[in-house]
Amino acid sequence: LKLRTDSPVKVERLRLAQRSFTRARICAAARSIFAAEGFDAATMEQVATASGTRRSTVYNHFRDKDEILAAIAEEFADGSVKLIHTLPRGLPSRADIDTWMDEVAAFTIREQIPTILLMNLGAGADIPPELEAVGVRLMQALAERLPAFRRALEPGPDQGLTQARARLVLQQMGMACLQLIREKRARQRGATSGRHMLSVAAELFERFAREGTL
Amino acid sequence: LKLRTDSPVKVERLRLAQRSFTRARICAAARSIFAAEGFDAATMEQVATASGTRRSTVYNHFRDKDEILAAIAEEFADGSVKLIHTLPRGLPSRADIDTWMDEVAAFTIREQIPTILLMNLGAGADIPPELEAVGVRLMQALAERLPAFRRALEPGPDQGLTQARARLVLQQMGMACLQLIREKRARQRGATSGRHMLSVAAELFERFAREGTL
Repeated sequence: LKLRTDSPVKVERLRLAQRSFTRARICAAARSIFAAEGFDAATMEQVATASGTRRSTVYNHFRDKDEILAAIAEEFADGSVKLIHTLPRGLPSRADIDTWMDEVAAFTIREQIPTILLMNLGAGADIPPELEAVGVRLMQALAERLPAFRRALEPGPDQGLTQARARLVLQQMGMACLQLIREKRARQRGATSGRHMLSVAAELFERFAREGTL
Repeated sequence: LKLRTDSPVKVERLRLAQRSFTRARICAAARSIFAAEGFDAATMEQVATASGTRRSTVYNHFRDKDEILAAIAEEFADGSVKLIHTLPRGLPSRADIDTWMDEVAAFTIREQIPTILLMNLGAGADIPPELEAVGVRLMQALAERLPAFRRALEPGPDQGLTQARARLVLQQMGMACLQLIREKRARQRGATSGRHMLSVAAELFERFAREGTL
């Protein structure tokens, strides 16, 4: 009697699936640990415990905390870039922008743990390169859609100011979403600060997209 | 022979001076510890060690970390309110605002540790009440000078949006100052991001002061 064994191709496919599953589990645990402890204070040990794996398994997937942060930030940027691609082509109207801002807010509420983590890291003494990379990807995706954001990436006498304005638009979107997340978490049903901040983000976005100034 | 002793009044004065000196030393140590470790991770033990006093001495002055944060935030707010009082009376010109922004930036560079700490706490999952109190004091001081900021504090149909705009102006000033501090700390002499962000803060401040919108 000959036992049937799985083909090497199938075994390899299962191994890769298992590996990516473990990786996703570690990332999910790390998101919670980083958000709860703060990125600087969190340890790989805590990430291992929270993900129910061994420390050696975590190191098998990620060299260090920075690599985990890079994976979390990249996934967040993937989702954000997809959202930017849903912006209508051409100059969006204020109504288009309002609808889109609601989708941005809904996305960050679903992804509230990385949103809090990234906003928090963005207000620290140093900006980690993993976060800079997210900013660059968002800016490039917006530049593909809107000439005003494109000018922020093109060398020229006004590039610095245009870049500062473009970043402010993104920053205000981020702060508004963070406020909406806070209100949601604190179950402040009647809260309006986040909505008003999102309106201000929409008004800045519209003016910047149309005129390149604020 | 009768020994001359200090009068009770003088003794009491010395005791109070000593007490306020110790308090200031604890605050100075706490600023560094909170900035280095993050406010959440820092312990009273670390504050005691850094200030060269006993843990019991720290508790003699402050009930908990929040009380130390309140003292640091209050001192920062005192300095900021003084700066707001240097704004010329009436509607400031763009040149007035630019000069004033330079003073704001110089103040935050001198006070870079509390600036980093407070900006960082302002981008967290919760805003601590000690930080809210700073925001309220700055807004009130600005409201005494400029009608646009006063409208942000007065109930009315547009209060929410006006408040969101006023906060954005303050937020952009804070982010610009934080970027200038980062550039200073990293000794990036040719860096221009912080200056451009400060210009954008000035342009928002001017428009908001003049028109109440952005």
